[in-house]
Amino acid sequence: MPEYIKNKAFEKHGVTLKAAAEAILVFNKSLIDALFDIVPAIKPQAAYYEMYGWEGVRVLTETISYAQSKDMFVITDGKRNDIGTTMEAYAAAHIGSVAVGDKKFTPFGSDALTVNGYLGTDGIAPLLKICKENDKGIFVLAKTSNPSSGELQDKCIDGTPIYAAMGDMCEKWGDDTIGEYGYSAIGAVVGATYPEQLSELRKRLPHTMFLVPGYGAQGGGAEGLKGAFDENGLGAIVNSSRAIMCAYKKEGCAETDFANAARREALRMREDIVRVTGLSK
Amino acid sequence: MPEYIKNKAFEKHGVTLKAAAEAILVFNKSLIDALFDIVPAIKPQAAYYEMYGWEGVRVLTETISYAQSKDMFVITDGKRNDIGTTMEAYAAAHIGSVAVGDKKFTPFGSDALTVNGYLGTDGIAPLLKICKENDKGIFVLAKTSNPSSGELQDKCIDGTPIYAAMGDMCEKWGDDTIGEYGYSAIGAVVGATYPEQLSELRKRLPHTMFLVPGYGAQGGGAEGLKGAFDENGLGAIVNSSRAIMCAYKKEGCAETDFANAARREALRMREDIVRVTGLSK
Repeated sequence: MPEYIKNKAFEKHGVTLKAAAEAILVFNKSLIDALFDIVPAIKPQAAYYEMYGWEGVRVLTETISYAQSKDMFVITDGKRNDIGTTMEAYAAAHIGSVAVGDKKFTPFGSDALTVNGYLGTDGIAPLLKICKENDKGIFVLAKTSNPSSGELQDKCIDGTPIYAAMGDMCEKWGDDTIGEYGYSAIGAVVGATYPEQLSELRKRLPHTMFLVPGYGAQGGGAEGLKGAFDENGLGAIVNSSRAIMCAYKKEGCAETDFANAARREALRMREDIVRVTGLSK
Repeated sequence: MPEYIKNKAFEKHGVTLKAAAEAILVFNKSLIDALFDIVPAIKPQAAYYEMYGWEGVRVLTETISYAQSKDMFVITDGKRNDIGTTMEAYAAAHIGSVAVGDKKFTPFGSDALTVNGYLGTDGIAPLLKICKENDKGIFVLAKTSNPSSGELQDKCIDGTPIYAAMGDMCEKWGDDTIGEYGYSAIGAVVGATYPEQLSELRKRLPHTMFLVPGYGAQGGGAEGLKGAFDENGLGAIVNSSRAIMCAYKKEGCAETDFANAARREALRMREDIVRVTGLSK
């Protein structure tokens, strides 16, 4: 986060959680303004908003609606999970709506949510209903991008790794929401840091859209992304966070040029993916 | 939620998310006042606060600090999970502290957090550090209380069910935070609805404290709880949510008597557990 944005927020709101949150909002809006015409979606990470308490969460809400006002698709990366009735509350909060008295509110109003499927079908069912009724989506963690993801996810159940079993569940959960391009509302998270599994799962899960984190700062390169896409160049959305948001640091340009640096990095990333995968823009 | 509390909040704040959140706070404070001398801990469920947007999350924060002002232990049921660097943000948010400029803030300040271990060790490591440094705790989902928990959790890896493998990881993660009663800072969530697995895991995981949901409204009875405790009557904290919060409905008493009804139900639950398990109060 550029110092000048922080300092301005501290001048206005004191050294407080509110100031930190407001600084994030200023940063986010500048990034969105610089990127919305070349980037289809943003994936705000809930943790980095909760980190600043409810003021941070307020700013998450504002970031979502600002991005949507620029026609961006918003995926809240919350990795939420719980049992049926409680999962309904998360689903309503993040991609659905909530009744208060005789009125209806959309608390966060995101377009999609990442979720953790460890609890099985009744932790996912409440989301399916909202996905169907409101044209929303979810991405279920299958093979995550972190180094220790294999501790559980690579273990085999009757010869099938858990990440693949989770992927199979995504296919099943999604089977009555398949749209015109062959993909359902139920996607899977598969890390760019595991290109073999990415290719394997693309073949195994023909109706499951992938959200692919780990490109860039986490070490996943464009070479490994090829297998994420189908023969029409569809089937995956590749995420880069730090590499774009902190491009001004890597470039060594002026802090005040951070949004332009982010745009340059996003264009570079697009070229990189197009070059390696042979996909069109 | 009693109608009179809702209506009062609507009168004050209009029919808004803020009104819903404020009504929850009034409800919570009354429950805490009626229960703090007989109940050691509360487990606010993050989903039911997020459901009312950032106003709800603000009220979660206030609920946590109000309960702590009455010397209650607070477990935020957030089932958070992410990879290393991002998990640090969740850990700081919920049980740690955050630096803003030259100041330090505790955004939620809970005593413990429930987490999902699907991502493996580097999703848990950031929490271990905070648990050790600040005397906090976590509860990792092992065998959850919902009907479909078995879809993944009961599957076997080399003859070991996943819930037990997750429990084994809890023992490992906790091994250098074992306190004077033999339990570490790393607990496990094991549902009261699965008494066999509860007994099996109690024997298998001698240093892992259990958080046991599912008693009451979800159908878990006191009979099944016996196996959750060790020979000293330690090792588990049993959670009841709806049965206590909505006791006034079941009793059919006046709405305005909801807090007393909750106290009566909590006392009944305690008697029930003491009777069956032979534990002392």
